[in-house]
Amino acid sequence: MTLTDGRRPGSRGVAADHVSLRRNNLSVVLRHVRDLGPRSRARIADETGLNKATVSSLVAELVDRGLLREGPADSSRALGRPGQLVELDGTGVCGVGAEINVDYLAVAALDLAGDVVLEKRVPVDVAHLEPGTTLDRLAELVREAVDAVEARSGELAGVTLAVPGLVQGETGELKLAPNLGWGEVSVAQEMRTRLGDPGYPLHVENEANLAALAAYAELHRTEDDRSGGVPHDLVLLTGAVGVGGGIVSNGHLLHGGAGYSGEVGHMPVAPPGRTCGCGRTGCWETVVGLTALLHKATDRDDPVRDPSLDVEQRLAGITRRAEAGDARTLSALKDVGTWLGIGGAILVNILNPDVLVLGGYFAVLGPWLKEPLEKAIQERVIAPDGGGCRVVRSELGFAAAVRGGAQISLDQVFVDPTRIGAAS
Amino acid sequence: MTLTDGRRPGSRGVAADHVSLRRNNLSVVLRHVRDLGPRSRARIADETGLNKATVSSLVAELVDRGLLREGPADSSRALGRPGQLVELDGTGVCGVGAEINVDYLAVAALDLAGDVVLEKRVPVDVAHLEPGTTLDRLAELVREAVDAVEARSGELAGVTLAVPGLVQGETGELKLAPNLGWGEVSVAQEMRTRLGDPGYPLHVENEANLAALAAYAELHRTEDDRSGGVPHDLVLLTGAVGVGGGIVSNGHLLHGGAGYSGEVGHMPVAPPGRTCGCGRTGCWETVVGLTALLHKATDRDDPVRDPSLDVEQRLAGITRRAEAGDARTLSALKDVGTWLGIGGAILVNILNPDVLVLGGYFAVLGPWLKEPLEKAIQERVIAPDGGGCRVVRSELGFAAAVRGGAQISLDQVFVDPTRIGAAS
Repeated sequence: MTLTDGRRPGSRGVAADHVSLRRNNLSVVLRHVRDLGPRSRARIADETGLNKATVSSLVAELVDRGLLREGPADSSRALGRPGQLVELDGTGVCGVGAEINVDYLAVAALDLAGDVVLEKRVPVDVAHLEPGTTLDRLAELVREAVDAVEARSGELAGVTLAVPGLVQGETGELKLAPNLGWGEVSVAQEMRTRLGDPGYPLHVENEANLAALAAYAELHRTEDDRSGGVPHDLVLLTGAVGVGGGIVSNGHLLHGGAGYSGEVGHMPVAPPGRTCGCGRTGCWETVVGLTALLHKATDRDDPVRDPSLDVEQRLAGITRRAEAGDARTLSALKDVGTWLGIGGAILVNILNPDVLVLGGYFAVLGPWLKEPLEKAIQERVIAPDGGGCRVVRSELGFAAAVRGGAQISLDQVFVDPTRIGAAS
Repeated sequence: MTLTDGRRPGSRGVAADHVSLRRNNLSVVLRHVRDLGPRSRARIADETGLNKATVSSLVAELVDRGLLREGPADSSRALGRPGQLVELDGTGVCGVGAEINVDYLAVAALDLAGDVVLEKRVPVDVAHLEPGTTLDRLAELVREAVDAVEARSGELAGVTLAVPGLVQGETGELKLAPNLGWGEVSVAQEMRTRLGDPGYPLHVENEANLAALAAYAELHRTEDDRSGGVPHDLVLLTGAVGVGGGIVSNGHLLHGGAGYSGEVGHMPVAPPGRTCGCGRTGCWETVVGLTALLHKATDRDDPVRDPSLDVEQRLAGITRRAEAGDARTLSALKDVGTWLGIGGAILVNILNPDVLVLGGYFAVLGPWLKEPLEKAIQERVIAPDGGGCRVVRSELGFAAAVRGGAQISLDQVFVDPTRIGAAS
């Protein structure tokens, strides 16, 4: 067992009054049903330790708010009056995530149950456009998603924008996005203006952080029944032109003091060579980013280098060549995989994640990258057996950040269900 | 502002009943007085949002348990009946930390107010002793500390043992300590046996993690009044023969999935050279550890290399030479400082700490190491101005881990004050 360090001195802790007690218990019941599935009020009372009358009142309020609904009768009871199951009412509340990346814009709307209402990605050569033009196009995509939510009479919990750069913790604004060629841009304010100052919350977050949250949720959906328990510590590596890291520590995103954590792409581990988007040389992303792979594997006029084509189509071209045994492609992939392992081992030594998740282009080309990466972790990590770290490929591909963005908007509802619907 | 991600799905959240509500509020009041100093019941009620009758009852119970006591009359009140201040009663409860390191054993006992009851360090060449012999000697030191606590009629909250190695999160036992030459050792069980199966809690924790907690508390004591707020994210580097990292993220120790985080000493950033304690080459500690410095700065028969002398005495020898301008010493320090910066920049890019704390031998020789380290952070960290990261030297020196050990034992009392004393 691990010792618990005391809560941090800076926060005084929260003195619970009866309003916050009820809000906390609404959150407990809602998350309980989300995580463990439909169940009777009696069973919720048993499992949470709340008394039955309290659970009935909490469920009633959550039903009123459109977050839970009555389900089928409880067929598991052998004796006595059959109970009624309650289940998550996914349909009434949605979250939206939207992403600006180097060569695409994307958007997703998810409902409370995690089902996809809308998902869309369009190739855009962002680095060669004015920020204002890109934001105009992103606003169109967000409007489409909001329309889709409204079309099913859903309440919008919020919109979260993913950007491939440094997001200041205090202001929530973009400070620097080297691979977009953007300096300080008030992305949230610019978008609010374009969207006509909407009433829903709108936030900006680093794309790798959001992809990490999405990967975390994905692991919890797919690994619920595995023995050994679900992971609470993961590092997600997302690669396209830039390489970003998102860190989940003990179930929470790690932001760092100013919000700038996870800048793994600029670890100075490579020999001096190609100049990085940040202006330095020797950065990790100069040897593991998509540009590095394309330079090694293809000629200048190769269509897979064309940023006006969708990135998944371009990667499908690489995959076909690798599957056909093309020597140049395979050699480039091995080289990238080896460098991926060198930086990956550093991250595992420092953070000891349960899982290292390959996202973005690393996920697509994972079949060729995984072996040298795993080898490096076994060889270079001081803890026996790589500290138990597994390498997995995300199934979300380039949708991870927008899914994570939609999710983090919805998470606010699980933390405080009173944000949604009318009070009972 | 930063978005809050929802609480982790794996933990169901805690349904608060009235027993846990009271325990939580006892903790809130106790920490409030610890962090903000003596104050009246009325002021505690104002500041925490609890009602006055509840605060009076909570204070009465905390006084009964020997955790708070009545202080002087409140002279700040201009009008009305003078109120009575309540203050932390530091004397009745103590925590003990004890440390095994490569060339010393150490122990500290702190009381609830953080005052030192006993502190002691003895030079021991641990790597050349049997683990059993070292544990015998450590048990003697712990007994001395427990006696000192009992001599002042104090209640012992617990003992935490610091080890320079991998501590498994699940079992709380030492898995590997390369620089001691120890493999798996049941340190907690061995010590419990030697101490006669005592009634107090006894835990094992990585020494860099404990030093990080101590540094965190130190910063909060000394920086309370600084503008810009107190830091919640720090990385502590502790150096002796081995180099360890302790990470505090948003006010909490980062342990990683299996408990093996912070193994910064084995980042593969150095050129192949001297073999590391872990058996590999190229590890960061082979170029920044104390052994690396001694090899560069001194000859084989130099007394500062003698592990039977106290490490602070040996470092005082290095300091004297550096102050006298000895070229070989200064060149070795510059070399170590430069390498410290290369690895330090990686940590800052990944974790974005508010503060990078130099502990152990790095703190002692900080005046010569700090400049190349700060230069590397400015040059190599992608976030502007090093992401706001400051470099500070810990004032705790080699006492950091034992202080942190005593503190983490005491922290359990602040989290749950009902662990101590009789119920009211």
